[in-house]
Amino acid sequence: MVGELYRFITDFGVIEGYIIKEEPNYYLIKLKNGYNIGIKKSQIKEMENLNEKIKVGQFPKRKPKGIGNLGFIYTGGTIGSKVDYLTGGVSAIMDIEELLAIADLPYDIKIIDSPFVKFSEDLNPKDWVEIVKSIERTYKKGAEGIIVAHGTDTMHFSSAYAYYALENPIPIAFTGAQRSSDRASTDAVINLFASSIYANSNIGEVAIVMHETINDDTAIAIRGISARKMHSTRRDAFKSINEEPLARIYYPSGKLEIINKKYRKRSDKEMVAKPYLDTKGALIWVYPGFDPSILEYYRNYRGIIIAGTGMGHTSKELIPMLKELSKDLFIGITTQCIYGITHPYVYSRGRELSKFATYLQGTPEKNYVKLLYVLGKESDLDGIKKEMKRLP
Amino acid sequence: MVGELYRFITDFGVIEGYIIKEEPNYYLIKLKNGYNIGIKKSQIKEMENLNEKIKVGQFPKRKPKGIGNLGFIYTGGTIGSKVDYLTGGVSAIMDIEELLAIADLPYDIKIIDSPFVKFSEDLNPKDWVEIVKSIERTYKKGAEGIIVAHGTDTMHFSSAYAYYALENPIPIAFTGAQRSSDRASTDAVINLFASSIYANSNIGEVAIVMHETINDDTAIAIRGISARKMHSTRRDAFKSINEEPLARIYYPSGKLEIINKKYRKRSDKEMVAKPYLDTKGALIWVYPGFDPSILEYYRNYRGIIIAGTGMGHTSKELIPMLKELSKDLFIGITTQCIYGITHPYVYSRGRELSKFATYLQGTPEKNYVKLLYVLGKESDLDGIKKEMKRLP
Ligand SMILES: N[C@@H](CC(=O)O)C(=O)O
Ligand SMILES: N[C@@H](CC(=O)O)C(=O)O
Repeated sequence: MVGELYRFITDFGVIEGYIIKEEPNYYLIKLKNGYNIGIKKSQIKEMENLNEKIKVGQFPKRKPKGIGNLGFIYTGGTIGSKVDYLTGGVSAIMDIEELLAIADLPYDIKIIDSPFVKFSEDLNPKDWVEIVKSIERTYKKGAEGIIVAHGTDTMHFSSAYAYYALENPIPIAFTGAQRSSDRASTDAVINLFASSIYANSNIGEVAIVMHETINDDTAIAIRGISARKMHSTRRDAFKSINEEPLARIYYPSGKLEIINKKYRKRSDKEMVAKPYLDTKGALIWVYPGFDPSILEYYRNYRGIIIAGTGMGHTSKELIPMLKELSKDLFIGITTQCIYGITHPYVYSRGRELSKFATYLQGTPEKNYVKLLYVLGKESDLDGIKKEMKRLP
Repeated sequence: MVGELYRFITDFGVIEGYIIKEEPNYYLIKLKNGYNIGIKKSQIKEMENLNEKIKVGQFPKRKPKGIGNLGFIYTGGTIGSKVDYLTGGVSAIMDIEELLAIADLPYDIKIIDSPFVKFSEDLNPKDWVEIVKSIERTYKKGAEGIIVAHGTDTMHFSSAYAYYALENPIPIAFTGAQRSSDRASTDAVINLFASSIYANSNIGEVAIVMHETINDDTAIAIRGISARKMHSTRRDAFKSINEEPLARIYYPSGKLEIINKKYRKRSDKEMVAKPYLDTKGALIWVYPGFDPSILEYYRNYRGIIIAGTGMGHTSKELIPMLKELSKDLFIGITTQCIYGITHPYVYSRGRELSKFATYLQGTPEKNYVKLLYVLGKESDLDGIKKEMKRLP
């Protein structure tokens, strides 16, 4: 039964595919285009065995080429989830083998790790450290490129942390899915495929590798500190903010095309993990009516990132309190526009703020992650300031 | 001198234009393409009078057509600012007449109002009420369409408030500039031009009217509750989130093309201002590491909007506190992805949250503005919930 080709006559049409798994209420089917789909048994009117067999996990592989062993790290998220046919929601969790079987990667993957299995909305900064340790373990077992399967909600926080915490990184591709892997419409197959190409490439950077458009022909590798989830549901949810993506990967050819010429090449040096972290930092988005007295709360913090308006502004009502706080803690200014630079000298408010706050480039989120990393690394305010400015 | 055409041989090239103002250190010049530019006297090597005169304020007007009188409201922002040649920053403030002279609109504008002149980072919700009252005044003086010149940093908050607070609105165009109006590169001229076309149109909605692209040939009218400043410096900073813009306006032809067929037509009924407001609401962006105990601070509030991750999630660590708060105050869920929907039934976290929180569509910012409006209108939690769901 499993591994055989069937024709299903269902309520919603006639479908041909290999059964890759049977559950009490439904079959998981691999279509010939590589997609997997779940069919409820109750929806099947007739099914006909087409007498063609295939061994699961042994779909014809493209010839492995590239530099070597890949590692696979599974942290949870939709990419490792199934549709729950009771609620219609996403929740049942796959095991790694099942996920890898569905992924059908062009390379054999033997080095596997999983620090935890969670939806990414539940991650906290300590989990970022666990991911980096898992990357280190996987590297030490011989991986020369790593795929990290991760929930999309907060993937850009985790990728930014790994970016800062890893020196001389091998190619590391964070990837996920907007539709669970057992759905016909899943984006997991192509995202994992493209991630394996990236992990096997010559780009020595942590990246997010996900669909480039809503089509299924290209994926994009975005520098881990420049990515942001910019859409709640689309396959091309992740965008590269304020700089070009690192590379484009074509499906199914596997061609990788460099876009950002300033990418960092794979280094000959050992990759080293330095997972510094101190969680006494916060990210604060300001807005008209933001109550300055809430800033009181952050007195015992060591740093805050303000997501200001426009080129990096706050209301003048916040100035006294911010100035006061800046004596003991780091204050960084970013823009809630998300796209575009901050600048302290175009408007008078910027000149005022920059007397005690540091203007930073890039997304509020990556600057928050950078702050927690730097707080773990540096002990005094001067060191923190210098490092916050120095790091990208 | 003023009103005459000159050829300037300068450090940076040969320029022809009408002098529209002379300052101690520089001339303000109107180029033939309609742009205004400041030239420092120190940069001028030679200037030649070309014996062509034009009366300032009487540049050939396109023939006024459309429905009637326009009103002009000035609230401040870069659009009403000049480059300060001492600091290189933007700060010197124009008076309305100067701004209108530079704008060179295709219609004569006689109804003018100005509730305050501020940079928009300094506005607070009470200022939104002042803007709506100014709109009402201007309407009562006979305006049949209104242009509101406004800073760009928080324009989308103000436009959203006016959207909720005005019933049967005439066309109202919020507009601004990313470069001050006395610069060659200013976007003010085209933004004001397009706003006047919008104000004279048949669209009975509050909109933001700004450049559509980085070119100077089209502007876009975005529904006041769907706009967001998505870039800190580009002329096409404002984007229409999750729906099509209302209309495109061509420059210099003045053609207005409807894009969103679901626009509301100008109504025969009286426009009525209902500026409800209660500032006991807040907007909170969550992230990995967000400290749940900060939510304590909002106990004495009447409502909060959460900018959640993905389709509208928070970490499970926040659930007990949010649940607790929800007994007394309204909790709305939006997405920090900015683009895309929220949905309570795709993930288990959504199902959990939706038991005590309300899933909302649209940007976190417009939902925050809606909340303050609704809090001013409704007295009990049930009324607030209903109204938050009912309003767009
Ligand atoms: N809420 C899920 C969404 C996803 O994986 O796409 C997560 O971030 O884990
Ligand atoms: N900071 C200015 C920027 C602008 O007007 O473009 C403001 O919002 O008022």
